[in-house]
Amino acid sequence: MTRTSPGPTVGVVGGGQLGRMLGEAAAPLGVELVVADPTPDCPAAPVVRDQLVGGFEDESTIRELAERADVLTFEIELADPDALERVAEETGTPVHPAPETLRTIQDKLVQKRRLADAGVPVPEFRGVDTTDELREACEELGYPAMLKARTGGYDGRGNVPVSGPDDAEAAMDEVAGPAMVEEMVDFERELAVMGCLGDGERDTFPVTETVHREEILRESVAPARASDEVRERAREVALDVLDAMDGRGVFGIELFQTSEPRSGSEGEILLNEIAPRPHNSGHWTIEGCHTSQFEQHVRAVLGEPLGTTEIRDPTVSANILGDVDERQDAVMDGEESVLSTARAHLHWYGKREVYPLRKMGHVTMTGDDRDGLLAEVGELRDGLTFRR
Amino acid sequence: MTRTSPGPTVGVVGGGQLGRMLGEAAAPLGVELVVADPTPDCPAAPVVRDQLVGGFEDESTIRELAERADVLTFEIELADPDALERVAEETGTPVHPAPETLRTIQDKLVQKRRLADAGVPVPEFRGVDTTDELREACEELGYPAMLKARTGGYDGRGNVPVSGPDDAEAAMDEVAGPAMVEEMVDFERELAVMGCLGDGERDTFPVTETVHREEILRESVAPARASDEVRERAREVALDVLDAMDGRGVFGIELFQTSEPRSGSEGEILLNEIAPRPHNSGHWTIEGCHTSQFEQHVRAVLGEPLGTTEIRDPTVSANILGDVDERQDAVMDGEESVLSTARAHLHWYGKREVYPLRKMGHVTMTGDDRDGLLAEVGELRDGLTFRR
Repeated sequence: MTRTSPGPTVGVVGGGQLGRMLGEAAAPLGVELVVADPTPDCPAAPVVRDQLVGGFEDESTIRELAERADVLTFEIELADPDALERVAEETGTPVHPAPETLRTIQDKLVQKRRLADAGVPVPEFRGVDTTDELREACEELGYPAMLKARTGGYDGRGNVPVSGPDDAEAAMDEVAGPAMVEEMVDFERELAVMGCLGDGERDTFPVTETVHREEILRESVAPARASDEVRERAREVALDVLDAMDGRGVFGIELFQTSEPRSGSEGEILLNEIAPRPHNSGHWTIEGCHTSQFEQHVRAVLGEPLGTTEIRDPTVSANILGDVDERQDAVMDGEESVLSTARAHLHWYGKREVYPLRKMGHVTMTGDDRDGLLAEVGELRDGLTFRR
Repeated sequence: MTRTSPGPTVGVVGGGQLGRMLGEAAAPLGVELVVADPTPDCPAAPVVRDQLVGGFEDESTIRELAERADVLTFEIELADPDALERVAEETGTPVHPAPETLRTIQDKLVQKRRLADAGVPVPEFRGVDTTDELREACEELGYPAMLKARTGGYDGRGNVPVSGPDDAEAAMDEVAGPAMVEEMVDFERELAVMGCLGDGERDTFPVTETVHREEILRESVAPARASDEVRERAREVALDVLDAMDGRGVFGIELFQTSEPRSGSEGEILLNEIAPRPHNSGHWTIEGCHTSQFEQHVRAVLGEPLGTTEIRDPTVSANILGDVDERQDAVMDGEESVLSTARAHLHWYGKREVYPLRKMGHVTMTGDDRDGLLAEVGELRDGLTFRR
């Protein structure tokens, strides 16, 4: 390997906040990014070498990206695995993680089946195409259950709780497409593990505790406030998940710690979902670890050595979400309190418009006492408001 | 204050490695950079919003920069204070630090006089315009002495040791312009303090120990391996220096810790030189502190609150210098060993060409034992070589 100028170039499908933070992490390493995103002047644009304006599924854009890059990756699951596969073959530019892994993850039913087959503990689930099938499945799984669109859902979109047989028809209508239904897991807490596959090596970041409201991640606490045994079991499950993935990169692995030990499972950890990319629950690693999840992804997709995943200090981060009623230009007040708090870090994603619950940035704080950090970061975040 | 997209914009005269690292630090804060530099695709270019291609003294370029920015700053002392002053007046865009401070610092004789007048302890010095004046000054200061060009020198360039009266004529010829001569300080170690002036606040980063060879900085160790008393005295001197500066920003303050206590001075710290900008001896703050010197400079020039200057862990950084015989395309081998060492961080500046002793990047490591870190970082750095 060598360093040159311009340096190795990573082509990224998607240029949202994840692309932006990939760019921030790549620069010190001498790695350049070119991103492809349909929104002109996307969040990543000001911090990367170049943006190609084009859709996530637009093959000519992806081909241009491949021609300018040493390796292709994606920061959004809407990337098209077929197009990526064809472009990789035509241009010789490798894609990481493998398009086949992206394809598997895009369909929540296929994802769950693949992982269950690989021995990863998952909640009980069934594929359902009709209201009758949904009712039948729920008879076995019990009410309430969670109906999920097989594709396209994120941040809770596409997920519909079903509390009884009378809900089934409306729920199927709402999902409006291929679906799966899962038992509603009674969990003690939600956890996430950022796993990484490098060139012949694999590793996990310390287990993160995630706090959701309205199915959207609000805060991440690291290390998770769980027992050593639970954290170790979460790491084991994450390593099993990594073994079922193809290609290199960072994977966001969301888990449930169940309230009761489960029969038929080795422990109380169940897999919820996987993202084949850096994940919101790993943003804390920017300040909390020696290597951030973004630097790790850059290293991994280029086939360079992974960095240490060791934690530096207990760390909490909180998402800044749009607290507005409708889509409008983003003007946020109150960041002075974040900037004037020692060990608090503001991350602004550079989105021009805010809409309800849109992820606009995050605040991270390092320290010793996770409960205190969680309270303090929450308060700092709550002090940030968008003008209406 | 607010955050918007695009965010507040800092216009930077100069787009070398300091501009690049300013851009890396500004991005998470939602702050954009536009840099002006005569070299197309300068090191900062790939990580900032835009580069204007133009000379550091080119007033039309600086005016365009001012029109696109909320505040102007500079990352190179070759910036023209007169042009900055005129442009600030014409456009209303403020300049930080103040052009008057830049003007003072550009002339080493004026700098020393100003600081001596402000009560800052400095080595004995004299302005000299002729060989006779040089010999006369050296009679008072003693041989050997150090003759310095008043303007334009850096990394030891423009500095000529004078070991006896017979050297004087050749030394004056070599400097070839307005000069000053200083006593040769017998120092125990060299120190540096990154000082910062914010909007109504001032602070210093932990005192750094700097190791030079051939008058070029090679390694920085933080905190300096000096007594608490020496470090406290260095901080006091740095604060006195800051009080003599106008405008906001980070200042690199280079100091000598003398081998013997000095009469006529309160302690054993003497000021060597000041840079009105982030400085090589503060690069370790990127990993070593909660706030880096680059983030601090961005905060300061925008008038936003300063971040904490608290250290996270003892940290050492080592410069990667061109180990070649002549100017050529930069291709560096050996970075794999840096990337595979836990807690080691590679910083590559993106320069297309390497020449002898050119600063091409640096390696930083955090840990506990500074002696061990210094040995290990030195070894990692020495393993990086440029193809000839």
